[in-house]
Amino acid sequence: MTTDTRAALAFAGELLAQAGEIALQHFRQPLEVTDKGAAGRFDPVTIADRAVEEFLREAIRARFPDHGIVGEEHGTIAGDSRFSWIIDPIDGTRAFISGVPAWGILLGLREDQRCIAGLMHQPYLGETFCGSGEGAWLQLRHGERRALRTRQDTRLADAILYCTHPSIFPLPAELADFEHVAARCRLMRYGGDCYSYCLLALGQIDLVIEGGLQAYDIQPLIPIIEAAGGVVSARDGGSAAAGGFVVAAANPALHAEALAALREAAAARGDC
Amino acid sequence: MTTDTRAALAFAGELLAQAGEIALQHFRQPLEVTDKGAAGRFDPVTIADRAVEEFLREAIRARFPDHGIVGEEHGTIAGDSRFSWIIDPIDGTRAFISGVPAWGILLGLREDQRCIAGLMHQPYLGETFCGSGEGAWLQLRHGERRALRTRQDTRLADAILYCTHPSIFPLPAELADFEHVAARCRLMRYGGDCYSYCLLALGQIDLVIEGGLQAYDIQPLIPIIEAAGGVVSARDGGSAAAGGFVVAAANPALHAEALAALREAAAARGDC
Repeated sequence: MTTDTRAALAFAGELLAQAGEIALQHFRQPLEVTDKGAAGRFDPVTIADRAVEEFLREAIRARFPDHGIVGEEHGTIAGDSRFSWIIDPIDGTRAFISGVPAWGILLGLREDQRCIAGLMHQPYLGETFCGSGEGAWLQLRHGERRALRTRQDTRLADAILYCTHPSIFPLPAELADFEHVAARCRLMRYGGDCYSYCLLALGQIDLVIEGGLQAYDIQPLIPIIEAAGGVVSARDGGSAAAGGFVVAAANPALHAEALAALREAAAARGDC
Repeated sequence: MTTDTRAALAFAGELLAQAGEIALQHFRQPLEVTDKGAAGRFDPVTIADRAVEEFLREAIRARFPDHGIVGEEHGTIAGDSRFSWIIDPIDGTRAFISGVPAWGILLGLREDQRCIAGLMHQPYLGETFCGSGEGAWLQLRHGERRALRTRQDTRLADAILYCTHPSIFPLPAELADFEHVAARCRLMRYGGDCYSYCLLALGQIDLVIEGGLQAYDIQPLIPIIEAAGGVVSARDGGSAAAGGFVVAAANPALHAEALAALREAAAARGDC
């Protein structure tokens, strides 16, 4: 990591603290919720999502005018450098509108197409999770830092598996495959959004399996998971950076077991 | 509410703050988890559950030696007065072992068999929800108090429905009935444990429907929900105090709609 990217990471941490204050002005307050989903699918967006993304975009453009920006609500701006930023202003809007502090502000720094540093900030908890080539840590409200380390010894039968909600899988077959893995774990729980990936990095849970993700949902989390000792991929073992069906595991052996169980489930329904 | 019960409530609030410190010593720390469930059903208990309940029991016995005590982990002691306390030391042990701050310490004060005051304390968030004949409020970390008020205008089609997990329903028919109601709501989310009932009291969500509850899971929450303007009952409209299948709603009209939808679901499967 160069001095430049180190400085960019410090800038990102300060920016998220300010963005968190903006989000908190709307959290647990009367809030107009707009449904941006297609018919029959509730996909909420609020003024908080838009205000946070606008703030982050403006601050990044001011500091790094040549960097590109990819954001959930306001689209993509190409830059003139190898660096770009990827923003999910409120990952977990359903949790946000429910008053549940499992949402987070996601910000990733990309060099070419690869996310080299990622941050997740949860302002109600006062927590910031950060990962890069220099390691992974959780910063608490009063500045205390705790190194992140996934559980290195968990196998599938002992694993705690999280997923936001059964409806996160666009295809019934994906949910069935998830349930095949879940039946082989010690405990499966729903809920969590981006916070689940951070709990995996913290060594509290062992697996997160979700479908239908967007690139901005997962890219900022990848450096956090990897720098903490975890593995995250698509279900075929390839890169998770494009989103879609994603498997995050606390260690390589558990990751291999989860992918094998998913292949087994697909084979059993004749999709080899 | 008499001076005596007011004093008891103040005592309970102070006690929970201390109990919360005990629980936090074990939260997000390496933890031995014992499975007290029957074969095939993971029912975790930890040293935190036991330590919190022992602390609360001893403190209550010292202050009110004639009061009865009912607790999840250490059973029932009959008292010599009309008053008794009901304790769930860690409601949401699965959330606790996962590092998710949706668990809480529940404490209720009963006069004869009726819970006249209830408290839920979430020490990681620094939140205490309290309800009694004198009203309902949320106390935040720095002592600020916010009155609790449920949403009085939500109807089923606009409602946000929460439930801890599909497996909370002991019978497949109960899950099917829940799903029948969920399909009629704007949003259904899993996760939450006792915290969901508090979010309902806070006016953030509108419905909680769960099955298989124990008396200690729900009794301390009833005064919080009711004093905030909500309604909580068994699915037949009777008292929720015994646990089992419970319906909590933000307002009476929504509660009636939810019970009607449950009856409709039961009728559709021939169970009238």
